[in-house]
Amino acid sequence: MADRIANPGLRSKICSAEQAAGFIRHGMTVGMSGFTGSGYPKAVPTALAAQIEAEHAAGRPMRVKVWTGASTGPELDGALAKANGIELRLPYNSDPIAREQINRGEMDYLDMHLSQVAPMAWEGFLGPLNVAVVEVSGIRADGSLVPSSSVGNNKTWLDRADMVILEVNSWQNAALEGMHDIYYGTALPPHRVPIPLVRADDRIGEPTLRCDPTKIVAIVETDAPDRNLPFSPPDATASAIAGHLLEFLSHEVRVGRMPANLLPLQSGVGNIANAVMAGLIDAPFDDLVAYTEVIQDGMLDLIDAGKMRMASATAFSLSPEAALRVNNDMARYRDRMILRPQEISNHPEIVRRLGCIAMNGLIEADIYGNVNSTCVMGSRIQNGIGGSGDFARNAFVSIFMTPSTAKGGAITAIVPQAAHVDHIMQDVAVLVTEQGLADCRGLSPRKRAELIIANCAHPAYREMLRDYYDRALKGSYGLHAPSLPREALSWHQRFIDTGTMMPG
Amino acid sequence: MADRIANPGLRSKICSAEQAAGFIRHGMTVGMSGFTGSGYPKAVPTALAAQIEAEHAAGRPMRVKVWTGASTGPELDGALAKANGIELRLPYNSDPIAREQINRGEMDYLDMHLSQVAPMAWEGFLGPLNVAVVEVSGIRADGSLVPSSSVGNNKTWLDRADMVILEVNSWQNAALEGMHDIYYGTALPPHRVPIPLVRADDRIGEPTLRCDPTKIVAIVETDAPDRNLPFSPPDATASAIAGHLLEFLSHEVRVGRMPANLLPLQSGVGNIANAVMAGLIDAPFDDLVAYTEVIQDGMLDLIDAGKMRMASATAFSLSPEAALRVNNDMARYRDRMILRPQEISNHPEIVRRLGCIAMNGLIEADIYGNVNSTCVMGSRIQNGIGGSGDFARNAFVSIFMTPSTAKGGAITAIVPQAAHVDHIMQDVAVLVTEQGLADCRGLSPRKRAELIIANCAHPAYREMLRDYYDRALKGSYGLHAPSLPREALSWHQRFIDTGTMMPG
Repeated sequence: MADRIANPGLRSKICSAEQAAGFIRHGMTVGMSGFTGSGYPKAVPTALAAQIEAEHAAGRPMRVKVWTGASTGPELDGALAKANGIELRLPYNSDPIAREQINRGEMDYLDMHLSQVAPMAWEGFLGPLNVAVVEVSGIRADGSLVPSSSVGNNKTWLDRADMVILEVNSWQNAALEGMHDIYYGTALPPHRVPIPLVRADDRIGEPTLRCDPTKIVAIVETDAPDRNLPFSPPDATASAIAGHLLEFLSHEVRVGRMPANLLPLQSGVGNIANAVMAGLIDAPFDDLVAYTEVIQDGMLDLIDAGKMRMASATAFSLSPEAALRVNNDMARYRDRMILRPQEISNHPEIVRRLGCIAMNGLIEADIYGNVNSTCVMGSRIQNGIGGSGDFARNAFVSIFMTPSTAKGGAITAIVPQAAHVDHIMQDVAVLVTEQGLADCRGLSPRKRAELIIANCAHPAYREMLRDYYDRALKGSYGLHAPSLPREALSWHQRFIDTGTMMPG
Repeated sequence: MADRIANPGLRSKICSAEQAAGFIRHGMTVGMSGFTGSGYPKAVPTALAAQIEAEHAAGRPMRVKVWTGASTGPELDGALAKANGIELRLPYNSDPIAREQINRGEMDYLDMHLSQVAPMAWEGFLGPLNVAVVEVSGIRADGSLVPSSSVGNNKTWLDRADMVILEVNSWQNAALEGMHDIYYGTALPPHRVPIPLVRADDRIGEPTLRCDPTKIVAIVETDAPDRNLPFSPPDATASAIAGHLLEFLSHEVRVGRMPANLLPLQSGVGNIANAVMAGLIDAPFDDLVAYTEVIQDGMLDLIDAGKMRMASATAFSLSPEAALRVNNDMARYRDRMILRPQEISNHPEIVRRLGCIAMNGLIEADIYGNVNSTCVMGSRIQNGIGGSGDFARNAFVSIFMTPSTAKGGAITAIVPQAAHVDHIMQDVAVLVTEQGLADCRGLSPRKRAELIIANCAHPAYREMLRDYYDRALKGSYGLHAPSLPREALSWHQRFIDTGTMMPG
């Protein structure tokens, strides 16, 4: 344990989580590490939650603003939300307790493009940052920090915060050292320069994080695993979606629009994304690379199968079994993976340069291919936009994937009009459901609608969609993208009223 | 006239517009020059329209697909649309005849991010390009082409087309030579590299366009002005909007979030944009630069007043008086202006690097700041998204400006829910109307709604909006971004039914 903190001067800062949490006061803004359940602090947030509960019990107000990389774990978002301790949360959340508070109007939530968090913090648009609470896997003799299983916004939090609290987690494999690439070339305009990354596997920075030692007020030693959610094998729906997508990619290679080893893959989190990765094992593409947000189980399999040369991301998002696999073999995986700041993993400049193949999930798409990624029935936040906007607008080809229905058929993923829009039709090139694939490149809205209804909608809703569209073609104010405002959102209203979008 | 075509070999290709148009056949895709009414071909499209009408009269089908930079002039879009000659139009249109055909469902229209047209053409996503019809201001002895008053997608059309038709327009000032900067470093992934532009006034390319002489099938000599729309001086509403915006910029400088000379300005087309430019004449900012799509009257004034050092764009968009001013003094203005391909003028990589201040107009914004830039009542296309998405998502600060009402108060620009979304709330930092300014940076959707209703809505609609929002706060499915699907679009329906959004 002791050798994880190799800088002698910093050993004097070792204290308990409770002591560390004591530096955080009511009204402060706290920048925490953590991205998709990886590399978040495990001890201080829980101690902070206890402190908040004690303050509340004593009749004193206490709430903080919490900034992170993306989602974290129950010990952070869950514990703080349960204590009613979060005034504002950014930029992404998947914790169920926090989600409920947001949707009850009790917590402010700022749902941001993940690439824009660090620059906006630097630009001063989000206000001051009082404290950084960052998990690392070690402190080197020179005081530099070996990052943990996610990088996220840690560089920015350490640079910007007035005070720094570190958690040194010895559960993380020491062989993580050398996997990370922390780019220190960002700046505020007018001083920005090109980011010198031209291949997904380029290293352009340093393996460790810098931190002014005089800002470090507390160091807490931990030995706790990341939250790793179990991985469910692809079901028939996910496999069907993956099948349509792989057929599309093969076709693009065949007609010469993509190289034989494809282009850098970006893949959202979840079951369908993993099904695509699983499908790539047997697909005729070699020498693959990923330039993406998170490294998931499916990418490990591709690396182990010799199909993927390199996966670049900002965090792990692994099942318990896969986390064990990586941890047991870190020195080998380290040569096949790079973890970067999320500002770089998701940077529009890089995504467009590399020509990523973006593959993201959604809540619903309308008949024109406008995509709602965040708000169920238009108002209830699920998780957040995450990096989907960073990738979708700048990708070589932007693909969105979803089962055609949800809630046992009570909800259709293809609706007359999206009740909330995160991705405009210009940023949605290809839409895939288990029913089929709609390649909308080069198509006008009306042609998109015909294709999406025919290829992607579930048969139970297809005729209803066609009927709406046919009547819109007759009664719409304009026929560029025909719509009937009176009933465009009525399917959502019906679900709210009756529990199903299907008429009674 | 003759000295405009200095390459002897190419002089043999000189022919009439009718002969040139004869190379264009039914079903072909034609890439035309032209951007906001500048630098479009004046003779061949009209001759083509006549040819199409003759074919139709003879009972034969004839239609073409028309790609341009952005909007053109009545001699192009107007003439071809009138002849029912356009099957598909991309990426932007402001011609009233073409607009009507699109909104009657008679013409397919692909409304694209302007920065993405050239890459998508190269990527093969738009199909083959048969003919390029490009206006130039001269042909040099070595066969290189001196661009005209817009660059747009001309480089890509000349590179990609099977056949090239040139119009050499001697109306354009010969002193245009040297103003342009044509970047030849773009590539398809995986071969893309950083674009080496770090200042708005950097030159990274060549002053002329390359063109394989064996592809040139016809050269037509013209002497015709660009369409230059009259410029109306700012009215009280535009001046009030500009006033709020300039106060905001001053505040940002004062608190240290922007340099004293601001950051590169991007400004949409129109009356309000010009009012902002007019306001900058008397504002305490010097040494300004513009990195924008089009150079308008207001920028000329800033250059003449010694307030603006350089304006970088892809085209002129000038009043007749301003066009005359530039034409009479081109050699001087040439040192203060750079015209680039629209792929570069609007490139997300550059916009984010430079940290542009993006200022764009809109049709409507909802109470959360989601912006509709294109579709009146959600379905009827006005012009198109243009470059607003290229700039808004990547800007240092993304500002949208609009009068708070339209059609004499029958339409409110602030609505419960945008009937169509082009810019999601994450890409809309600041909203300005003549009523006031809402600085939404760092605010959750509910805080945005309160601010936008209070600061931006017209008093005649403010209480209606507040009533909707208050009821949504009670009855919404989720309270992240409260909405009532049953009535969210009912104001649009009321306008369609009664001619006003105001209840009777």
